[in-house]
Amino acid sequence: MAEIQNSEAPKILTMNQGIGDQSYATNSISQSKYQSGSRPLLRRAIAALCAADLPSAIAVADLGCSSGPNALFAISEIVGVIRGCCGGEAPELTVFLNDLAENDFNSVFRGLSNEKNGGSSGMDECFVAGVPGSFYGRLFASNSLHFVHSSSSLHWLSQVPEELSEKGKGIRNKGKIFISKTSPSEVIEAYYGQFKKDFSCFLKSRSKEVVCGGRMVLTFRGRRQPDPCPDETCLLWDYLGLAFQALVHEGLIEEEKVESYNTPYYEPYVEDVRREIEEEGSFKIENLEIIALAWDGVNRDGESTERSKTTQQMAKAIQAVNECMIRAHFGGDIIEPLFKRFEEIMVADTREVEHVSLVVSLLRK
Amino acid sequence: MAEIQNSEAPKILTMNQGIGDQSYATNSISQSKYQSGSRPLLRRAIAALCAADLPSAIAVADLGCSSGPNALFAISEIVGVIRGCCGGEAPELTVFLNDLAENDFNSVFRGLSNEKNGGSSGMDECFVAGVPGSFYGRLFASNSLHFVHSSSSLHWLSQVPEELSEKGKGIRNKGKIFISKTSPSEVIEAYYGQFKKDFSCFLKSRSKEVVCGGRMVLTFRGRRQPDPCPDETCLLWDYLGLAFQALVHEGLIEEEKVESYNTPYYEPYVEDVRREIEEEGSFKIENLEIIALAWDGVNRDGESTERSKTTQQMAKAIQAVNECMIRAHFGGDIIEPLFKRFEEIMVADTREVEHVSLVVSLLRK
Repeated sequence: MAEIQNSEAPKILTMNQGIGDQSYATNSISQSKYQSGSRPLLRRAIAALCAADLPSAIAVADLGCSSGPNALFAISEIVGVIRGCCGGEAPELTVFLNDLAENDFNSVFRGLSNEKNGGSSGMDECFVAGVPGSFYGRLFASNSLHFVHSSSSLHWLSQVPEELSEKGKGIRNKGKIFISKTSPSEVIEAYYGQFKKDFSCFLKSRSKEVVCGGRMVLTFRGRRQPDPCPDETCLLWDYLGLAFQALVHEGLIEEEKVESYNTPYYEPYVEDVRREIEEEGSFKIENLEIIALAWDGVNRDGESTERSKTTQQMAKAIQAVNECMIRAHFGGDIIEPLFKRFEEIMVADTREVEHVSLVVSLLRK
Repeated sequence: MAEIQNSEAPKILTMNQGIGDQSYATNSISQSKYQSGSRPLLRRAIAALCAADLPSAIAVADLGCSSGPNALFAISEIVGVIRGCCGGEAPELTVFLNDLAENDFNSVFRGLSNEKNGGSSGMDECFVAGVPGSFYGRLFASNSLHFVHSSSSLHWLSQVPEELSEKGKGIRNKGKIFISKTSPSEVIEAYYGQFKKDFSCFLKSRSKEVVCGGRMVLTFRGRRQPDPCPDETCLLWDYLGLAFQALVHEGLIEEEKVESYNTPYYEPYVEDVRREIEEEGSFKIENLEIIALAWDGVNRDGESTERSKTTQQMAKAIQAVNECMIRAHFGGDIIEPLFKRFEEIMVADTREVEHVSLVVSLLRK
């Protein structure tokens, strides 16, 4: 198992903690909408699992659970559906909540403890464990899982592609912090290569852990077109790159510092995802769907859809998931001006893009 | 499983966090000495487990792991011994670290992540999960554990006996915070009753979780004599009770407040432990030993054994495990004067007692 442990998983890839105004908990509306969007497929997969002969005890894992309200949302849903499908003869359920070791498991466990003492989620009937570590390596014993769920996590790579890192070949992605239309093709290839490597490690690890007949439902950001740099993938990152450039011009950060910063993130093309799964060969694709949220889908339902409101919400959402990494590279002083510029740049523009995720439902052959 | 979930487990029964001067991490020397003392028996139990036909994947649980350096000490030892016994054909190992949901699992997981990236404990070859919850209820799926370890935890009760709580019959334990020679017999009976209830819940839960042929090694404070109030059980608690009384006389706390405070702790008589195990019936006692640490055994090896040094160390150790509970009942202001008095009272006396723990090695029939 050690050979696919990835000790280089970015330790700073941690969502903003707590429940304050800048926290991931408060700013993960789109993530929860993707969860809602993938619900029909999730329910179908669980129903199919339950229709098969289930053992008397089954284990379910949520990979990349994070620590906001979404942390227990998905797993409660899954537990509820399993109980619904199985009726009175529900098997004993063990639930594994996974994220990197730096995740705030304390808050997850305390939330769970409140659920257990009077919550309505049915979680009080489960055995629950937290599993720290990167899902790009092995996390569980062989043939120990019956159902795996992961939402809004697999678009995070295990690391920035080595070719772009300071230790690597040092390919420069001038003025950008992610793939963009102006990125050299080597940058795009490096990101694609990292995705292939990571995703195949993910599949290989899960193929050992999931029992035959077990299932996985994975939701993550992806592309519906082969072009690696469509606006709907790159626009927000371009805005953020411009915000960094603005701080360079103001003398708040050095250009060199921005050039050596890249985000360990990738939105794979849906057909590349399909090909990786087929090449690995352990899982059969039962369904593969695309969910597109409207530009203003980051707002809570019923909230204003004005651009200024949407961009404000978007800035907070992007800050909640990127702040730890940015802080580790640039220090904390730039956070406030950076996201202020980011919001100003977004609100001054008129372009709108949809936010696209893929949902794939897999059966372990 | 819900019927034996104990939702009244004291949430405030948490060791002092961090690694500072007052932390449990720094002040758990005696706990680590008990672990060393139980090592021969632990090794024998693991050797016996490995001598049987082991499945290709086994699961080990440490119950009440806490969060100091001892948190990984025991489990690393166990993992090392299993690997040693099994040679090249070691089974896949899953390790469950359990404590109450309020335990600092974040620090345990971060410590583990350091271990995995270059530690020498062999933990990098294990799958690790944290399991929040009270071990007086079910924590794991049926027949899922092969080896269970618990050290310096089972002397903590799930709650103060109801008869002593404000909601209960309100039996008063005048001027004391634990069983003492002046306690009314109802107090002693209430504590004994709570031990019986808790320990039998513990055994019943584990009997469902541990596979036939699986083993448990439990180390916890206990008595080698039937007298419920020997000095070696009560002296330190009497000193602490006197410290509380001193604060009452100084007007720092109300007498009433002390009368309603009791510690959810019990040191069972070794023969009562034996009887409970035999009555529950699922486990065979393979060994039952007594470990007695000398009065100054709370000091690090090689340190001065002067009474003033010993009592200083003892005050810190008692503070590390009691502070959260005391703080929750009395507020934080009394902590410093209380433990100052406690130390003064101890140093002014001349009595010395040994610190006694029981180690029991059990086989699931």
